[in-house]
Amino acid sequence: MSGILIVFEGIDGVGKSTQLELLYYKLKTRGLEVCRTREPGGTPLGEAVRRILLDPAYKGMAPQSEVFLYVSARAQCVAEVIRPALQQGAVVLCDRFTDSTLAYQGYGRGLELQALRKVNELATGGIIPDLTVLLDMPVEEALARVRRGGTLDRLEQETCDFYRAVRNGYLALAGQQPERYLVLPASLGKEDLAALIWSRVEVICRALQ
Amino acid sequence: MSGILIVFEGIDGVGKSTQLELLYYKLKTRGLEVCRTREPGGTPLGEAVRRILLDPAYKGMAPQSEVFLYVSARAQCVAEVIRPALQQGAVVLCDRFTDSTLAYQGYGRGLELQALRKVNELATGGIIPDLTVLLDMPVEEALARVRRGGTLDRLEQETCDFYRAVRNGYLALAGQQPERYLVLPASLGKEDLAALIWSRVEVICRALQ
Repeated sequence: MSGILIVFEGIDGVGKSTQLELLYYKLKTRGLEVCRTREPGGTPLGEAVRRILLDPAYKGMAPQSEVFLYVSARAQCVAEVIRPALQQGAVVLCDRFTDSTLAYQGYGRGLELQALRKVNELATGGIIPDLTVLLDMPVEEALARVRRGGTLDRLEQETCDFYRAVRNGYLALAGQQPERYLVLPASLGKEDLAALIWSRVEVICRALQ
Repeated sequence: MSGILIVFEGIDGVGKSTQLELLYYKLKTRGLEVCRTREPGGTPLGEAVRRILLDPAYKGMAPQSEVFLYVSARAQCVAEVIRPALQQGAVVLCDRFTDSTLAYQGYGRGLELQALRKVNELATGGIIPDLTVLLDMPVEEALARVRRGGTLDRLEQETCDFYRAVRNGYLALAGQQPERYLVLPASLGKEDLAALIWSRVEVICRALQ
């Protein structure tokens, strides 16, 4: 596959979607073929699954059930969007991917990481991001941003301890494969962050042109 | 866990639900604690997932996405219904379980069986049926029954070849662990089938009384 997969990760409220959008238009203006998607979602099936995942009615969702819903949306997104775009040589920007499963359901909920990696592999067919931008921020700060947004969905209702475990999980994952990660303090200004991300992405995208 | 798990398997149209119901009432009249459920479904979350799975709108569903939706419903059903009932010593009757994944997504869609077994294990926490009643029937006959029922859901629209692979998959699974299976020709009369199933279940349930 000749394209490039760039993933944005981090706990809720750190500004992943904003940075993804800024990068999307930056790449567009450079004349690159770009495709953006999000997880869970990105396809009609994935969006239906997303509605279940975020619905506060399913408060008693089993951790295993949750993980399978996420990877179900992922598998569809890979088959329908990500793989075809990568095969056409596009830059694919994805809001969350396999690391979300490891951070949230592994580090956050305590499911076995090795089992989750196998599940991820079955869902993606082994696709690994070329770069993962991890937007990092103290949990209290990120949650305060989310809570300013109004009504909370099922996941936003989780405790600070849960999000602390998820944040530490992300940092552990980044520490294991530093060459695949760009870890940035999400508290930086929007434009500063965008510039830092671009300087790294530019190097990677040179290979495409 | 002190209960007993009895699962009904087979391709669509063979009469699993009917036999499950007959067995349910038979056990009830014997004064046993009985619990019945179905897959996908059995819980509010599972029923929401079921609606997605059967919706003909999702014709392009990736096989991996499909398998994860099924096991998501399964994980929830195990956590919410099956495990608590088994812990209370009940007889649990389940319309489809882990073998459906192996037969449909493994033998039917060609996903790797070993990976599917791992996924099943994560979903069930290792719960294995005490008895699996496999209702077997030539594919043409079973599909003719289904088609008499009117509008077809996403799965019922599959080809005969698909169902043949699924049926052969079930028979292969039963052949691998004959002591856990009761394979019966589904073309027998309803009452004859029920009597055959009961004679086997009675032996197993003696342990409970």
